[in-house]
Amino acid sequence: MPALSSRPSLIRRSPIRRIAALLEEAKRKETIISFGGGAPSLPPPPEVVDYLAEMIKKEPARTVAYSSTKGVPELRQLLAEDLKKHWGVDYDPDDILIVNGGTEGIYLSLAATVEPGDEVIILDPTYLGYSEAIKLFGGKVRYVPVSVENGYQPSLEDVERVISPITKAFILLSPDNPTGRIVTEEFVKGLVDMAVKYDFWIIFDAVYKHISFGRKTPWVDAIPEARERTITINSFSKEASIPGLRLGYVTGPREAVDAMEKIKQYVSLAPSTTAQYAMIKFHEDGIKDRYLRDVVIPTYKKRRDLMYQLIQEYLPEARTVLPEGAFYFFVDMRRYLEAMGRNDEEFANRLLYRKSVVVIPGRYFGSKGVGHVRMTFVTEPEERIREGIKRIAAYVSSYMF
Amino acid sequence: MPALSSRPSLIRRSPIRRIAALLEEAKRKETIISFGGGAPSLPPPPEVVDYLAEMIKKEPARTVAYSSTKGVPELRQLLAEDLKKHWGVDYDPDDILIVNGGTEGIYLSLAATVEPGDEVIILDPTYLGYSEAIKLFGGKVRYVPVSVENGYQPSLEDVERVISPITKAFILLSPDNPTGRIVTEEFVKGLVDMAVKYDFWIIFDAVYKHISFGRKTPWVDAIPEARERTITINSFSKEASIPGLRLGYVTGPREAVDAMEKIKQYVSLAPSTTAQYAMIKFHEDGIKDRYLRDVVIPTYKKRRDLMYQLIQEYLPEARTVLPEGAFYFFVDMRRYLEAMGRNDEEFANRLLYRKSVVVIPGRYFGSKGVGHVRMTFVTEPEERIREGIKRIAAYVSSYMF
Repeated sequence: MPALSSRPSLIRRSPIRRIAALLEEAKRKETIISFGGGAPSLPPPPEVVDYLAEMIKKEPARTVAYSSTKGVPELRQLLAEDLKKHWGVDYDPDDILIVNGGTEGIYLSLAATVEPGDEVIILDPTYLGYSEAIKLFGGKVRYVPVSVENGYQPSLEDVERVISPITKAFILLSPDNPTGRIVTEEFVKGLVDMAVKYDFWIIFDAVYKHISFGRKTPWVDAIPEARERTITINSFSKEASIPGLRLGYVTGPREAVDAMEKIKQYVSLAPSTTAQYAMIKFHEDGIKDRYLRDVVIPTYKKRRDLMYQLIQEYLPEARTVLPEGAFYFFVDMRRYLEAMGRNDEEFANRLLYRKSVVVIPGRYFGSKGVGHVRMTFVTEPEERIREGIKRIAAYVSSYMF
Repeated sequence: MPALSSRPSLIRRSPIRRIAALLEEAKRKETIISFGGGAPSLPPPPEVVDYLAEMIKKEPARTVAYSSTKGVPELRQLLAEDLKKHWGVDYDPDDILIVNGGTEGIYLSLAATVEPGDEVIILDPTYLGYSEAIKLFGGKVRYVPVSVENGYQPSLEDVERVISPITKAFILLSPDNPTGRIVTEEFVKGLVDMAVKYDFWIIFDAVYKHISFGRKTPWVDAIPEARERTITINSFSKEASIPGLRLGYVTGPREAVDAMEKIKQYVSLAPSTTAQYAMIKFHEDGIKDRYLRDVVIPTYKKRRDLMYQLIQEYLPEARTVLPEGAFYFFVDMRRYLEAMGRNDEEFANRLLYRKSVVVIPGRYFGSKGVGHVRMTFVTEPEERIREGIKRIAAYVSSYMF
């Protein structure tokens, strides 16, 4: 075999994708309770399902025809209106690029901005894909720690401490994976001031933007000075419960969107037309707002509240915060793990083996995640959330007593 | 705005994608006859359409759930059987990676093999995406010319002439875009010998593999020595007429497939689950073979034969070869263009403006394509093919006489 490039060796295989593959192979055994991958368990809105099935039957050739690289104009028009309505920002439909899900959005935003040697700041812990994508482009990762003590909120002082002359971008995820944190208005304002002062990009990952249970996330590019230095990543996976259709979109300054579009032509050519038609319907007739208000948020809020209550009841030595948004509890298990003589990864592996419960080791999200586990509350229904937490408690206490 | 990376400036915007976007904006005016983008005009098999509509209605959550990065095991199993049946090659389902269409396959295969400074050999003319993807990874493009005189067949001598110590890969597309050429067994054997001797990869782009009107394309990795140095790119866009579902797959040595999967985790996370279910059905119950035999090949062959006859009748000074496969005629228009005092790009622009016929300038496919145009015969039905060629002839003769 001729040599491979060095690129694969720059990055690690995603441990969460490994778990996803394992679960797929196991065909989701009924006995396995998954607090693992953040996969919405709700079906998409019935209007969207019906429309898509009808389109495929009635106009099959059109529904599976090529789209332009930027995406179907009708959808980009609806998204411009949606951004204005929910976040008060004005984007021309031509400043919106439809992508194959949030992952491609992150990838393209880094491809368009990061030069080898540039530094990109991320939080620790945070979504595990950022560091690997940054490394693929030869970038260097700088970390800003957050911890359960201050509700996983980053501090502006900590950010300023890692800024350097080669800082190229800051990636902000709010609501956050794995902590459920929504950043404060003050933090965003301070971050934008620093981005202006030190001339770096803010890559605002808003894939969980509609998944919040109280206040909404601040919107970075609603601040005028942020507009020309912010690329925002959106996904339909969470808000429309369609992760397997692979669709999202990015916004930013025209020049940056043009650069991402150009690169996308050779990365994936065009987004799925079928998925775009589904999302046109999602944004019509008030379907999206009704679905979020009546189905998604009440369902997930109930599960979140239940899991919070169960953690407090059954795992009293664990420390966590009630997530304001997204899909996860990030739980500091160090008091248990120390008593058990296990690290978080060993704990997760054994918990699956012994009790058929999937949790994600906190170390996968950064060095500050060591001793934690991430548990999603959206994938399982309430009775299985109860059963899962009880199993974890039983497993833990088998060591403790 | 902070600086963008240099990546966007390494590549050119795809002129064909620009035309695709223009046509989308124009909502396909009835008056425009498109011999432009190679978009299948046939609907997918009705069994696939019905199955997909039914799956979406009956099991919406499952149909739009996340897939693993590598793809649904059931589909990979069917593809392993299909490769064996049609091309005589044995692949383990784990050596098959499902991707978001052939474009992502090309992108990942280059990401996994090409180091900055490496040389990659392609033909001239050939598919216009290769050179740009190579440049995105810092690779250098070397060209091997082909011409209408020898039926667009490359010669082994010409290949050996451009091989150097830093040759990393050769990209072979057969059946070819834009020329319709299927390479010879001799050429493939000689190429494999050189790949062994000089230790380089063969990236075999087989996206048109089932679109041939006589003999089948030779299959590179059916040659035992080729197996450990060939990555093969497959797409369902052409053979199942589903370009807008964005799905394909790659095969190769295990280590290369693993490398591509790892990179894909951060490029696009996973392929569309919905599209994968559709393609599971496509490979069941003999649907694929029937569809190709009874619908795709007869329809396209008739259109090809008609366009060939019309070119000879109405454009007698043009030179081309009857394409053995793929979707296109590559037509040497130099005798007309010289008389008209126009180059191929000016010709295409004016033809669209004056006669509402879309053709693709040959220069987009390489320097040897100057003076040619590419015309697809699959997008328009027969009466519109006739009308389109007549319009071209009328446009040409308005200059000639």
